[in-house]
Amino acid sequence: MTSDSLRELLTAVQTGATSVDAALDRLRGMPFEALGFANVDHHRALRCGFPEVLYCPGKTLEQVERIFDSLAAGEGNVLATRATPDQLAAIRRRRPDAAYHETARCVTLRQRPAQPPPTAVAIVAAGTSDLPVAEEARVTCEIMDQTTQTYYDVGVAGIHRLLRHEPELRRARVVVVVAGMEGALLSVVGGIVDAPVIGVPTSVGYGASFQGLAPLLTMLNSCAAGTAVVNIDNGFGAGYLASLINRQAAVNCKP
Amino acid sequence: MTSDSLRELLTAVQTGATSVDAALDRLRGMPFEALGFANVDHHRALRCGFPEVLYCPGKTLEQVERIFDSLAAGEGNVLATRATPDQLAAIRRRRPDAAYHETARCVTLRQRPAQPPPTAVAIVAAGTSDLPVAEEARVTCEIMDQTTQTYYDVGVAGIHRLLRHEPELRRARVVVVVAGMEGALLSVVGGIVDAPVIGVPTSVGYGASFQGLAPLLTMLNSCAAGTAVVNIDNGFGAGYLASLINRQAAVNCKP
Amino acid sequence: MTSDSLRELLTAVQTGATSVDAALDRLRGMPFEALGFANVDHHRALRCGFPEVLYCPGKTLEQVERIFDSLAAGEGNVLATRATPDQLAAIRRRRPDAAYHETARCVTLRQRPAQPPPTAVAIVAAGTSDLPVAEEARVTCEIMDQTTQTYYDVGVAGIHRLLRHEPELRRARVVVVVAGMEGALLSVVGGIVDAPVIGVPTSVGYGASFQGLAPLLTMLNSCAAGTAVVNIDNGFGAGYLASLINRQAAVNCKP
Amino acid sequence: MTSDSLRELLTAVQTGATSVDAALDRLRGMPFEALGFANVDHHRALRCGFPEVLYCPGKTLEQVERIFDSLAAGEGNVLATRATPDQLAAIRRRRPDAAYHETARCVTLRQRPAQPPPTAVAIVAAGTSDLPVAEEARVTCEIMDQTTQTYYDVGVAGIHRLLRHEPELRRARVVVVVAGMEGALLSVVGGIVDAPVIGVPTSVGYGASFQGLAPLLTMLNSCAAGTAVVNIDNGFGAGYLASLINRQAAVNCKP
Amino acid sequence: MTSDSLRELLTAVQTGATSVDAALDRLRGMPFEALGFANVDHHRALRCGFPEVLYCPGKTLEQVERIFDSLAAGEGNVLATRATPDQLAAIRRRRPDAAYHETARCVTLRQRPAQPPPTAVAIVAAGTSDLPVAEEARVTCEIMDQTTQTYYDVGVAGIHRLLRHEPELRRARVVVVVAGMEGALLSVVGGIVDAPVIGVPTSVGYGASFQGLAPLLTMLNSCAAGTAVVNIDNGFGAGYLASLINRQAAVNCKP
Amino acid sequence: MTSDSLRELLTAVQTGATSVDAALDRLRGMPFEALGFANVDHHRALRCGFPEVLYCPGKTLEQVERIFDSLAAGEGNVLATRATPDQLAAIRRRRPDAAYHETARCVTLRQRPAQPPPTAVAIVAAGTSDLPVAEEARVTCEIMDQTTQTYYDVGVAGIHRLLRHEPELRRARVVVVVAGMEGALLSVVGGIVDAPVIGVPTSVGYGASFQGLAPLLTMLNSCAAGTAVVNIDNGFGAGYLASLINRQAAVNCKP
Amino acid sequence: MTSDSLRELLTAVQTGATSVDAALDRLRGMPFEALGFANVDHHRALRCGFPEVLYCPGKTLEQVERIFDSLAAGEGNVLATRATPDQLAAIRRRRPDAAYHETARCVTLRQRPAQPPPTAVAIVAAGTSDLPVAEEARVTCEIMDQTTQTYYDVGVAGIHRLLRHEPELRRARVVVVVAGMEGALLSVVGGIVDAPVIGVPTSVGYGASFQGLAPLLTMLNSCAAGTAVVNIDNGFGAGYLASLINRQAAVNCKP
Amino acid sequence: MTSDSLRELLTAVQTGATSVDAALDRLRGMPFEALGFANVDHHRALRCGFPEVLYCPGKTLEQVERIFDSLAAGEGNVLATRATPDQLAAIRRRRPDAAYHETARCVTLRQRPAQPPPTAVAIVAAGTSDLPVAEEARVTCEIMDQTTQTYYDVGVAGIHRLLRHEPELRRARVVVVVAGMEGALLSVVGGIVDAPVIGVPTSVGYGASFQGLAPLLTMLNSCAAGTAVVNIDNGFGAGYLASLINRQAAVNCKP
Repeated sequence: MTSDSLRELLTAVQTGATSVDAALDRLRGMPFEALGFANVDHHRALRCGFPEVLYCPGKTLEQVERIFDSLAAGEGNVLATRATPDQLAAIRRRRPDAAYHETARCVTLRQRPAQPPPTAVAIVAAGTSDLPVAEEARVTCEIMDQTTQTYYDVGVAGIHRLLRHEPELRRARVVVVVAGMEGALLSVVGGIVDAPVIGVPTSVGYGASFQGLAPLLTMLNSCAAGTAVVNIDNGFGAGYLASLINRQAAVNCKP
Repeated sequence: MTSDSLRELLTAVQTGATSVDAALDRLRGMPFEALGFANVDHHRALRCGFPEVLYCPGKTLEQVERIFDSLAAGEGNVLATRATPDQLAAIRRRRPDAAYHETARCVTLRQRPAQPPPTAVAIVAAGTSDLPVAEEARVTCEIMDQTTQTYYDVGVAGIHRLLRHEPELRRARVVVVVAGMEGALLSVVGGIVDAPVIGVPTSVGYGASFQGLAPLLTMLNSCAAGTAVVNIDNGFGAGYLASLINRQAAVNCKP
Repeated sequence: MTSDSLRELLTAVQTGATSVDAALDRLRGMPFEALGFANVDHHRALRCGFPEVLYCPGKTLEQVERIFDSLAAGEGNVLATRATPDQLAAIRRRRPDAAYHETARCVTLRQRPAQPPPTAVAIVAAGTSDLPVAEEARVTCEIMDQTTQTYYDVGVAGIHRLLRHEPELRRARVVVVVAGMEGALLSVVGGIVDAPVIGVPTSVGYGASFQGLAPLLTMLNSCAAGTAVVNIDNGFGAGYLASLINRQAAVNCKP
Repeated sequence: MTSDSLRELLTAVQTGATSVDAALDRLRGMPFEALGFANVDHHRALRCGFPEVLYCPGKTLEQVERIFDSLAAGEGNVLATRATPDQLAAIRRRRPDAAYHETARCVTLRQRPAQPPPTAVAIVAAGTSDLPVAEEARVTCEIMDQTTQTYYDVGVAGIHRLLRHEPELRRARVVVVVAGMEGALLSVVGGIVDAPVIGVPTSVGYGASFQGLAPLLTMLNSCAAGTAVVNIDNGFGAGYLASLINRQAAVNCKP
Repeated sequence: MTSDSLRELLTAVQTGATSVDAALDRLRGMPFEALGFANVDHHRALRCGFPEVLYCPGKTLEQVERIFDSLAAGEGNVLATRATPDQLAAIRRRRPDAAYHETARCVTLRQRPAQPPPTAVAIVAAGTSDLPVAEEARVTCEIMDQTTQTYYDVGVAGIHRLLRHEPELRRARVVVVVAGMEGALLSVVGGIVDAPVIGVPTSVGYGASFQGLAPLLTMLNSCAAGTAVVNIDNGFGAGYLASLINRQAAVNCKP
Repeated sequence: MTSDSLRELLTAVQTGATSVDAALDRLRGMPFEALGFANVDHHRALRCGFPEVLYCPGKTLEQVERIFDSLAAGEGNVLATRATPDQLAAIRRRRPDAAYHETARCVTLRQRPAQPPPTAVAIVAAGTSDLPVAEEARVTCEIMDQTTQTYYDVGVAGIHRLLRHEPELRRARVVVVVAGMEGALLSVVGGIVDAPVIGVPTSVGYGASFQGLAPLLTMLNSCAAGTAVVNIDNGFGAGYLASLINRQAAVNCKP
Repeated sequence: MTSDSLRELLTAVQTGATSVDAALDRLRGMPFEALGFANVDHHRALRCGFPEVLYCPGKTLEQVERIFDSLAAGEGNVLATRATPDQLAAIRRRRPDAAYHETARCVTLRQRPAQPPPTAVAIVAAGTSDLPVAEEARVTCEIMDQTTQTYYDVGVAGIHRLLRHEPELRRARVVVVVAGMEGALLSVVGGIVDAPVIGVPTSVGYGASFQGLAPLLTMLNSCAAGTAVVNIDNGFGAGYLASLINRQAAVNCKP
Repeated sequence: MTSDSLRELLTAVQTGATSVDAALDRLRGMPFEALGFANVDHHRALRCGFPEVLYCPGKTLEQVERIFDSLAAGEGNVLATRATPDQLAAIRRRRPDAAYHETARCVTLRQRPAQPPPTAVAIVAAGTSDLPVAEEARVTCEIMDQTTQTYYDVGVAGIHRLLRHEPELRRARVVVVVAGMEGALLSVVGGIVDAPVIGVPTSVGYGASFQGLAPLLTMLNSCAAGTAVVNIDNGFGAGYLASLINRQAAVNCKP
């Protein structure tokens, strides 16, 4: 439609029905949408296999049902994060084939076959209480067509549990580190691998954890170079970023 | 030496001078160094062209001089960050060929020819006061053999200054965004590119900026997927991480 | 009544029943009410069409019912904010004609016909989760006799969704910007319009949002001139202030 | 220049040198600058008499000198805020006619005659230590062609000092309230006027003031409707916003 | 008992059964209790009519019942603060004559006739939501034998509501000011009276109130001399302190 | 003067020169000053012997000199707090008889003979670093005509240093407790005396003291009833409040 | 198994089946587990009588049941902290002999006879609301084979309640101090004993306690030497550390 | 003297000059000092070889000189912490034999021969910038007659630098861990040793370190049992506590 109006204008210029100056004026006043730049998010999803994403908290069952259905109407994969069981049920009313990942609290709908790159995203988590966040990262990676390798319950208080995996970790192209309490795991992992390491502080802990502030500050101050941090409990964000990095290391999704 | 003692032990087993059980016992008690794992940082630098890095604040002139000289004794490149003019002078007493980057407050010593990958790291900075941090990121990228493309003074209060660079930015494999005050630039850039975007909040601002807390929180809460954050004013960290990502997108440095 | 007692006193002076000195003494000791300054809020409501406002949280059903009824006994419009369904029911027991705005959680009672000024208040909201706050602002504007134009779900992560409305936004006399998470929308809007822009940070988000602290700091540090900020989630405050500004741009309510 | 290239393209379509489809393609790829939207800040200054503004902190003498001179090359007024005596001297090297406002720490250059609207901006300050911020607001208003009326040293600890000005304050179309320490002045003023009130918390105080955090929170939580807040010590921001509001109440600067 | 053992020792010295040196040694090793200093709180209650106080939160019904009963076994008055209806019921199982103050959430048992001093404690509260805290202060004062005079709903947004009570307030010997949101009331009251003023910030508010942090900081930074502050929502503490001050102004409770 | 104009008006009513209605109108529009309420601070000083107070930080030498001289022109005592040696010199240029209290950093000018009440204000300080604040409290008390009794260097880490003064402390009518670091002294003193206790947290300490935040929170959370807190380092505020309380316990300064 | 593979390798060297160089290479690549260092936590438990510990919050009933059972399969004692009644029931399904400590919310399973050292750990708690944390410390000490001596309800507001126990406290080898509200107890105890004192701030309190931040800061800033602090409400951590210290003072658990 | 007055009293009882009841009364009123409990700090120093300690910041040269001299007049060792070169010079005016520890910024005076216990205190520091704090801990330990073993520059970003010392560290009876930036070292060390571990967060770092808040929170939230934390930069406190623990593990200093 927008392209149509642009084409109309240009044709009018071509046929002499509109002068160059008049066309110039109309072009200046035209909203961007008219130029085809808009709805970037949608284009991104189509072009590179990025999923359409639905963040569930604070949405009614009806909203979740309708938005998920609408996203699924496209050809791409769909990911809904932090879904409650009720919200899952609402989604499945219209999309009974949607998969539920209980620990990760995610719903996925795969509509295109995965073409995973040869390297896997490594996901390292400190404790069992950090699993919901780590699994959210893992599910995000997989719906973005990445393979993952997980290393769970390898917190720094028993450093050798982590170090036995050092050789494997050093082969990863990108590592996600999920840790609550004091969040020291990011620095230790950052010190033993050469790849980018993405830290996810979690709200696991109590008292002076201040709902994840402690591991957040820890990770931001990491003395290990090659690390960066996402929001507290943001497993999705870390998985998304890790997928971008891993994908680049392997294939070129740009046209 | 450590390898020597290990070899001695194995030879003793081979010759029967030591029993298998005795050797087992001695191996269990041996420090890790003996197994050749140690000094990872040094190995990393040699293997992948990572620079040896010296963080100058809080170090005496003598310490700066001696440490820089010692790092330069290796074959790799050397980077000293946040150097004062006095510290620069101390470095140049022994290394008159070290280059100084005034705005970035960095000293570099290139000892190996650069082999930059085909893609450049994009560095975007909001205001002129953010330049010291942005330049620290740029110098870090370059001593890590990356090329950079900078977009400075494109803060969100005049959004079109940024948007005119949208096509170029969308071609970058990784983007570093440097912003103080409210730090909103990360979200805007994150929304228009598909590549990983690394945010560096700066302490530029006053009052409720709280020395960079405001843009730090802004960036951590970014609604744009594919972003992560490093410490306030940590241009080095962002440049280092961006270099790791850009390098991976192009060549494989692992053996 | 108060005027009456003043008049009485003056008449007594006039008739000589009270000496000047005695009158002087009585005037000095008289409370302000006696001078007609008091109950400013009530006068304000009558004079300028400001609504009487009832903030519902923490009030019992009986209190809400009684206060609303009492406010409605005047001739002006009435606004109750953050009302629960139970509180709505209590209000309607006596005022069945009160209107409920579900998303905004507001109850209104219009008792005087609206005379909206020719210009509309623009209300811009970043995400769908910000709607309760944005709608509270909208309902407040409308009960204050303003028309509104809303632009919802135009967060900065997809900047072109916002920019397509740039021409319209530039025509507004005052803009309210409602955003949670990182709150960057205020700066972007502030950069494209010439009118006053009022930011409302919301508590939408998680982790390092710290219940709205992140967008609050973002907005306070905005690099865009012509902006100011109200409390977290304070849609009412923003709508009220926007109405004052819009009204001034059009008509003069002062006597 | 940009218009030229657009015109060239359209002419090529008109003459048939370029097909409609080819033109369509080129238009899609063209940066926004090409469409004449860019450099908004500059246009804003020209259109409405807004000053060009230079924030001095963190800039070298040479930078201040050069930027001020460049801004002054336009036809509009120029405002430099938080200038040190050295920076003032640098500015005056090229612009000896620039005026210095010592308490406000501002430099102004008026290049267009002022056409103040009939109403004045009221500026209320709590204590003498708040004067630098209040004066920054005042100077900003005046270089934006507003008249001001100041009420200084009327802090709430002696409430009657303020209340004696109540009748005048009630006639203002917009009020700026500057206060440090506990910042209570905003609520009191907000309670006695019907106009928009803009609060500026200052860093005046000690101990639990936490560099202005205390009055900032006070003002954000004000129980008086019709108020909003700018950053700590941001007299410029308050003056700028007040000028926008006052101007709207009087004249219409839009084309 | 303790006095008994001391008496025994002294008698033994008197009769020569114990030498002076042996008594000296035993006295040195004796715990303080033996000397009658201990259980100060109990003595304080008896000597000056202070109530025995029970803070209910976090205590089981059984604990509340037992502790209240035990306190009531003395001859003094008893005060239980922040009691739930269930805890009230538990108290009344053994003490059916205990009085409940619903808004204040307090239970009192008066066992001694009140002898109020001639002056009353003035209690000023900003809004109706602050009443539970203000009433806790009032009930505390009264069980400590003070009379009170309350001024409720006189927040600073309508300053004349407060000022009409100025003459009465100026007669008070001590004033308690209870305010949430921005807490500005303390400074205003502190500015119009000569007596000590005790501020109680409340957690009433939302957003940047941060559960009472905002009014707490406001009150601590008050520019009015003669003020001090107690913990957020600590109506009991303010009432207790006000009673001490008012009592001193009138009678001398020391022996 | 103001009384004069009121008298004039009333006389005009009496003589019939002004009608009752016209007088009514003029009275309504008259500023409060006209009614004799204004300039409360000054009246307070005269009536009760309160000092005129000058807070020196942030004031120029000229301002300090002029303000002090102007305050001294009244008949009351004058107190300047936090004066630097330079500011002292400026004061003494015109008032060579002003006394300097070095540790307290205060300047006083006594112009009326002291009539101290029979009881002394007790001032307790934890460590020698807290002395400037404690002395500021002491000097304030004395210029307000109180006598003081100081107990310095009695911090809780050696609790018996404090307890040896218990009998004396228990005789005080009001106690000021000055403590930095952890600020525990307030609770201990509050537990052994029956009188009001005013806590002054100081910024003495380092690290997690956060410039006095630690003792501030400690004191606000004190489990000892009868305590209240002033701002960090606010020795003046505590001394002022203590003087009000001590004065009330002894004499009645109200007319 | 791991030892087996090491033995195999060494035997192959011994028999000549593997050369010394090949063995050297394999040893270098072997994960740590192979060397017997791993699973430190388990070894620690066996060697020194440390309990296996299960932190219950956030774990499902099934997880708690399974993990407890698995820990109990070893020969050591087992401790589950912060168990809900449901979690207790789950544990007892398989381990009906597990003991429940209601106030401490702990479950213990003793499988080895205790051999308590001759000295007891002293546990001091300020108020009855602090008991759950104090009891968690006590139960931890006892399952670690220590005896304990408790001093409860000895808060500093009644300092003599504590001081009467001074002689006993001075005999302890290590003291745990548990306190909420203002947390001053640590400093007082630290000042009267010579032994190490471990502070546990609790979240008991309200308002400016900020969920335990107040006593945490208090304790970190303690002016009493010989003290250290654990996380808010971390009774387990304090009990564990105290047990380590007390054990060392008595017996040598190292081989 | 105090003993004398007690003896007098008892003698009077013995001789009948004072009745038992009168003696009882006088004993009740006697200050604690009279019982010989006071001046605990001094006794502690004498009894156990604890040093007398002088914290220098904020003290004048004269105060430092006098206090140090006075402490040195006893027979024990003396420690002055955080001394500037000027303060050192002041100390040496009277005590030329005082030793200066430059990195630790400490002055010591040994007056009694050391009798170190057989085990050493291990002190582990993350980076070279942490050395002043680590050395303060070391000097404190040594003036308290302990031997120390230091492990410096073993931060977690190169974990193997630390792990090579694992066997030695596991032999320590107590470990002090000094770390700034993210402070992760405490957890790693705490996970590999069985002994008590004392964490000292340092203010080394920048940005989101917030002057040591980040490592402080990290250490408080450590997932490694057996750890506790002292104030930011408090090397003295950690050394003092470690000495207490190490001493107990070896000898019994109690009478």
